[in-house]
Amino acid sequence: MNRLNNSIESLVESYKEHGVVNHSGAVNLPSRESVMAILADLDEILFPGFREEEDLNHDNLKMFTAERVNRLARKLILEVEKSVSFSTRNGSFSCGHGGCHAVARLIVDDFFETLPEIRRVLLTDVEAACRGDPAARSIEEVIVSYPGLDAITVHRVANFFWNRGVPLIPRMMSEIVHGRTGIDIHPGAAIGESFFIDHGTGVVIGGTAIIGKNVKIYQGVTLGALSVKKDEADKKRHPTIEDDVCIYSGATILGGETVIGRGCVIGGNVWITESVPPETMVFLKSPEQGIKSKSR
Amino acid sequence: MNRLNNSIESLVESYKEHGVVNHSGAVNLPSRESVMAILADLDEILFPGFREEEDLNHDNLKMFTAERVNRLARKLILEVEKSVSFSTRNGSFSCGHGGCHAVARLIVDDFFETLPEIRRVLLTDVEAACRGDPAARSIEEVIVSYPGLDAITVHRVANFFWNRGVPLIPRMMSEIVHGRTGIDIHPGAAIGESFFIDHGTGVVIGGTAIIGKNVKIYQGVTLGALSVKKDEADKKRHPTIEDDVCIYSGATILGGETVIGRGCVIGGNVWITESVPPETMVFLKSPEQGIKSKSR
Amino acid sequence: MNRLNNSIESLVESYKEHGVVNHSGAVNLPSRESVMAILADLDEILFPGFREEEDLNHDNLKMFTAERVNRLARKLILEVEKSVSFSTRNGSFSCGHGGCHAVARLIVDDFFETLPEIRRVLLTDVEAACRGDPAARSIEEVIVSYPGLDAITVHRVANFFWNRGVPLIPRMMSEIVHGRTGIDIHPGAAIGESFFIDHGTGVVIGGTAIIGKNVKIYQGVTLGALSVKKDEADKKRHPTIEDDVCIYSGATILGGETVIGRGCVIGGNVWITESVPPETMVFLKSPEQGIKSKSR
Amino acid sequence: MNRLNNSIESLVESYKEHGVVNHSGAVNLPSRESVMAILADLDEILFPGFREEEDLNHDNLKMFTAERVNRLARKLILEVEKSVSFSTRNGSFSCGHGGCHAVARLIVDDFFETLPEIRRVLLTDVEAACRGDPAARSIEEVIVSYPGLDAITVHRVANFFWNRGVPLIPRMMSEIVHGRTGIDIHPGAAIGESFFIDHGTGVVIGGTAIIGKNVKIYQGVTLGALSVKKDEADKKRHPTIEDDVCIYSGATILGGETVIGRGCVIGGNVWITESVPPETMVFLKSPEQGIKSKSR
Amino acid sequence: MNRLNNSIESLVESYKEHGVVNHSGAVNLPSRESVMAILADLDEILFPGFREEEDLNHDNLKMFTAERVNRLARKLILEVEKSVSFSTRNGSFSCGHGGCHAVARLIVDDFFETLPEIRRVLLTDVEAACRGDPAARSIEEVIVSYPGLDAITVHRVANFFWNRGVPLIPRMMSEIVHGRTGIDIHPGAAIGESFFIDHGTGVVIGGTAIIGKNVKIYQGVTLGALSVKKDEADKKRHPTIEDDVCIYSGATILGGETVIGRGCVIGGNVWITESVPPETMVFLKSPEQGIKSKSR
Amino acid sequence: MNRLNNSIESLVESYKEHGVVNHSGAVNLPSRESVMAILADLDEILFPGFREEEDLNHDNLKMFTAERVNRLARKLILEVEKSVSFSTRNGSFSCGHGGCHAVARLIVDDFFETLPEIRRVLLTDVEAACRGDPAARSIEEVIVSYPGLDAITVHRVANFFWNRGVPLIPRMMSEIVHGRTGIDIHPGAAIGESFFIDHGTGVVIGGTAIIGKNVKIYQGVTLGALSVKKDEADKKRHPTIEDDVCIYSGATILGGETVIGRGCVIGGNVWITESVPPETMVFLKSPEQGIKSKSR
Repeated sequence: MNRLNNSIESLVESYKEHGVVNHSGAVNLPSRESVMAILADLDEILFPGFREEEDLNHDNLKMFTAERVNRLARKLILEVEKSVSFSTRNGSFSCGHGGCHAVARLIVDDFFETLPEIRRVLLTDVEAACRGDPAARSIEEVIVSYPGLDAITVHRVANFFWNRGVPLIPRMMSEIVHGRTGIDIHPGAAIGESFFIDHGTGVVIGGTAIIGKNVKIYQGVTLGALSVKKDEADKKRHPTIEDDVCIYSGATILGGETVIGRGCVIGGNVWITESVPPETMVFLKSPEQGIKSKSR
Repeated sequence: MNRLNNSIESLVESYKEHGVVNHSGAVNLPSRESVMAILADLDEILFPGFREEEDLNHDNLKMFTAERVNRLARKLILEVEKSVSFSTRNGSFSCGHGGCHAVARLIVDDFFETLPEIRRVLLTDVEAACRGDPAARSIEEVIVSYPGLDAITVHRVANFFWNRGVPLIPRMMSEIVHGRTGIDIHPGAAIGESFFIDHGTGVVIGGTAIIGKNVKIYQGVTLGALSVKKDEADKKRHPTIEDDVCIYSGATILGGETVIGRGCVIGGNVWITESVPPETMVFLKSPEQGIKSKSR
Repeated sequence: MNRLNNSIESLVESYKEHGVVNHSGAVNLPSRESVMAILADLDEILFPGFREEEDLNHDNLKMFTAERVNRLARKLILEVEKSVSFSTRNGSFSCGHGGCHAVARLIVDDFFETLPEIRRVLLTDVEAACRGDPAARSIEEVIVSYPGLDAITVHRVANFFWNRGVPLIPRMMSEIVHGRTGIDIHPGAAIGESFFIDHGTGVVIGGTAIIGKNVKIYQGVTLGALSVKKDEADKKRHPTIEDDVCIYSGATILGGETVIGRGCVIGGNVWITESVPPETMVFLKSPEQGIKSKSR
Repeated sequence: MNRLNNSIESLVESYKEHGVVNHSGAVNLPSRESVMAILADLDEILFPGFREEEDLNHDNLKMFTAERVNRLARKLILEVEKSVSFSTRNGSFSCGHGGCHAVARLIVDDFFETLPEIRRVLLTDVEAACRGDPAARSIEEVIVSYPGLDAITVHRVANFFWNRGVPLIPRMMSEIVHGRTGIDIHPGAAIGESFFIDHGTGVVIGGTAIIGKNVKIYQGVTLGALSVKKDEADKKRHPTIEDDVCIYSGATILGGETVIGRGCVIGGNVWITESVPPETMVFLKSPEQGIKSKSR
Repeated sequence: MNRLNNSIESLVESYKEHGVVNHSGAVNLPSRESVMAILADLDEILFPGFREEEDLNHDNLKMFTAERVNRLARKLILEVEKSVSFSTRNGSFSCGHGGCHAVARLIVDDFFETLPEIRRVLLTDVEAACRGDPAARSIEEVIVSYPGLDAITVHRVANFFWNRGVPLIPRMMSEIVHGRTGIDIHPGAAIGESFFIDHGTGVVIGGTAIIGKNVKIYQGVTLGALSVKKDEADKKRHPTIEDDVCIYSGATILGGETVIGRGCVIGGNVWITESVPPETMVFLKSPEQGIKSKSR
Repeated sequence: MNRLNNSIESLVESYKEHGVVNHSGAVNLPSRESVMAILADLDEILFPGFREEEDLNHDNLKMFTAERVNRLARKLILEVEKSVSFSTRNGSFSCGHGGCHAVARLIVDDFFETLPEIRRVLLTDVEAACRGDPAARSIEEVIVSYPGLDAITVHRVANFFWNRGVPLIPRMMSEIVHGRTGIDIHPGAAIGESFFIDHGTGVVIGGTAIIGKNVKIYQGVTLGALSVKKDEADKKRHPTIEDDVCIYSGATILGGETVIGRGCVIGGNVWITESVPPETMVFLKSPEQGIKSKSR
């Protein structure tokens, strides 16, 4: 008992000393649990009838939607308000004299107005997955089981809030879906319609990457930066991928000025730091691999 | 309030317009939550006493087993029935005049009869992990903590349902365990006894791969396809790995006609698109790596 | 009903026959659920106010801390006692005549005395992430969303119990965080202050690796073994990384005698099995990559 | 195991034999859990901000209300549909050719239109409690803690559905609140504004009782029937209480033709089976009570 | 903090000093939560399909029953074992050399063999309620909403364990249902078929009461003892009620030798301490009640 | 949809109009759920080891206690602060310049210092129940199942807060336990040691009642007021019961100046509005009861 009591005292001291990893008493941050609940609610709004057990029909669909939209709006306003309030501390965000609650309300109203368009785009992603994976047997299979769709769904939402300057929440969203898919898309990335990531584990897409329409990416692909200097944080540091490009597993494409031209095919494990003209195939030449019999 | 109400109307409109990502009113699909609950129940049946907190003993083990088997059977019949009913829509499955409930019941009865055999095979996998990982200190450690065992356990179950032609559920199972281990095994893959995946993140095994007995695979290994054309979906597109093969991390083996012969050792990061004769070692020759002093 | 009843009988038989994957009636093992709950409690103690929704303030912080420390101590003693009792079966651990409960109590008391020091070190990790990732916008963002921080936090805790010889729990902890981050750090690895893993999916760090201060590692890096012979389990099989080293994505460094000297930069995808002198840059020479136009 | 299996068989047999207490396979009934959830939702709509922990404000109040009303409407339609479908079996209810879903929808729409009026009346009940109990210190205390208010709130809701001919649900509601307050009001009773029950345990109010405005009742009061013949079920069997009556604890008033006139005061424990003219006090004359010293 | 720490010390001291209300370290007792869960499970077995939301049908009814019976058996054995072990401490129960687990197992096996008979008797109670309450509109309404049925259902179960000498559990069961209905039946009471309690709040039935078939009781009826001397605890202290008796609300019948003969009708509020011959009506003569006009 | 939307608008209007039953936007009140959780925590502190399933022992008892006391203190301070803040609105409570948080902290610190004394007194209540009920077979049976003990336990806690002038919480506590026992004790009542209520349903004890030591009360007893005028709320309106009194079921004792002297026995159903000298027995003289044969 005594040793534990001493440890408790030491911990409380430690909270004072190293205040930075201790948020007690300051402005509240959005909690991971709240953001996870928000994503779950969103999923039910974006794919109604797919991810739940209750029966939907023409009649109750409207009531379900009204219930969910109102619940989600309420939660989102709360978390967005926390996030922008946090940002006003270091001056990176200003709420104006309407106050941060009004700003949060406005952003969330805008978000719901954008949701039908996000759904339309997600539909192109679903169709891209169906076309792009020989093993996909139905639209429904893609929606209920493809991690690539999970990742792009969350990204399209996170990207909305990133573009509106909301801090923390977009990164929390992208890390939540990173955790459950192994696909790490920075919320800043601009990604066109009909996007498909197959398998996906290990994919990394940087925050200033620009990706056109109808792009397909396999597991382990990195769209990264050449430089990781802190003072270049605001430059475009990640590549541009034009329409109709396919990038096979393990390929690494680096640099903010690197452009992969329309229609390119980037082979597995290639390493690219300079632009590639349209309609080009890049592939690893047979690497030198030794072979010997085990018996020797 | 008004803007939200308008957004609700737009969403409901959007559900009508892009009906395909909206399952309201149609046949129910198995839900992700149900399939996760099924896997959790299965785990308790396959490894009784390992993954729970209640005390098991000779006496209550029988009651526990009867309780769990009956509960799981009930849930499985429900979800399998939903899945096969869904499949009858596009003609890929026919329930006959007994109806889909009877078909589901039959498949589930068969499944439970197969479970003791699945347990026997899983035991060989556990032993393979123990033999194959110098760091493994006990059978128990493997069972309570190895993600490779989690992946192969779920695979052996998903594979049963895949082989019986049940749609959706096998893919949902494989993606659930993909999400928590980073190991992506298509439920169609045929995998022999004493299979061991170490670390595992990034492993991808295609649906027509055939893997023999006593095979060991490290993180980042891909057993993939050379072609991803939709019309080749039914061909054998993924490699065959014979008995006693070891494949080190990051290796990529592609193609349905590629056969890695018995006893081969495939080195880290190698790239293989053609068959390798038995008892062969394939390794990356020292790649050209530059070295320079930072001070210069 | 009859077929199910037969399957139940067969399963119960199977539990007798292949007793090894069935722990009924034997000493209890720590459950995965308990270890997850322990990690969640720890997180609230290490980063108070960050990961929850209740308001913390100067006053209730003390009560929160006392509550959590006492609850966690209680749970930890229980699970540690189970683990060490398990270990006494094969002689790999001896509890002395004080008994395993007293040993568990002692280890847990020591653990809480070490927690403030662990917090101090974690703070250096948070700062390293802030310095090392241009995209990081605040200390708070790192704490609420970086998977690399999640992994090193759990590792520093798991490593404490590993060093005290507690079986199972450290491996369970490392696999739990492996599951949610894709970062696989063996609890035996010795890792210095100011450690940062960016993106992280696919990172593997072996149990006898030694890592200095201020080291930065990207996704897909392996610090592995050259040999996986069971009888070398107790040797140093994984590399040593000295202070101020940066290792880019996909690099593989193998072998217990391999030392990466202070200040080195290891480029993406390189493959190293021998020591590298300090202040050296190692990089993949432009690999031979073919390029051709698709139209041809 | 064998004895249990036999018992299982016997139970399944028993379900067939005494089918009446077994609803398997027939039309579903509303479940007690659903009706409890409906009452909890209603409480949040009737007394917003009183019975929950989340902060309400001008802004989110609208969203909360829309969310709750839509959720409750959805649940109510489901349970009302089950109830009226059940009733059509014995011909006591007919759904017409719109079907029972449409009927349920209509009743629920009407219900929500009536809710503001129900709130208005409940407010008079709250004020009556404040006036009537010297110990009541505030409106808020009545709302958060008075069981009499709980009982009349549920009654006013149950009575709406009773009057619309919905079976089962009104009785389930009245028994749920009977269980938690000891106050048993049949949903058929017609009760005026400003009604107050103090303490309440043991109060019984029959289904054909009529109660005016501003009536106050104490614990243990029965407003019951003289006859309990099954064939008089449809007659008025319970008394009429006019405005401004006060009935003290333990009083029993029986009979459908018994009228307690406006302004009466009915003393504790009296027994009344005939009408009492207005403005009358009825009291128990000093009953013959013996007294003796214990020492004798 | 300091005052709280002192209070914690004082409480721990208090636990040592007044050990009797502190069960730490001794044999475990059945917990209230476990007994409540057991009653909920039982309810699903006794009235399948009535109190839950999942669909039952001919097929899954068997699996449901097997699942529930096995789960309930497991829980019951655990709690019964705790209870009889507790009883062996003061010698009031002996487990023999089979041990208390075997005794618990035997009692529970017997219990399940008795369940079909208990169901048969409960069916007579349901029918009695239907006959006895003019307001009852269907068998289903009685089962889903009548507290009197809840009370007699739990009593018939508690009485089984009471008769087998199991301590604590029967009393816990009767108090749980007392809490939710206001009906307090001691588990020792012997109650015949076709028993009906209407309204029920305040009913008290003592442990040595004997009640015949087809008895009907209203709210507030007491079947109690004349003497409450501790040394008469084992005598018959409560009345005998023969077949076909009806006892109206508030009646008090006391004494172990008091017999209410077959077919009697006992009026409201009467007070009986001596036997009443068969076919007799006892009623309160018009008590002296004063009446005066309020205006005077 | 339209009718529902209109109803939502009407409800929101209704919230504005009848603001009094709507607490949105004002000071928060303690929630019923929080107060229930507080009572559950308290129960675990007052009777450690009795009401839960985890094993307690000498070692973890201290940690359990510290955890619970700190958790409960935290919750209590929150709810007490809400309550006293609420009271400052109408001037019935003043927090001084330390503020309401400091006042709440002080009250809660005092409360925990009083808990060991409350435990000591509760022990006398447990012993009184054991002595007073011939059917009680052990101390443990009383603690796990007697509703009278539940009621007095909660009362002794509620009374502490009542005496400190905390509003709402004491009444909420007393109504919560009223709901589950049917025993309604106003938190203001002063009750001595060794108090026992048997059966209890329908007991009402007013807020200015004074009860000595070693008093025993049966079901349906009322200790009430003669007058219920609002302006006499602060007078002593309920009776005084001296030491060693026993009051049988259904007795009614009214009036603030009524004193039941030491050692009295008050018979069932008697009605008392004047004082009774010590050592007196009061009993209902055989009331006039009619008897007739049914056959006539």
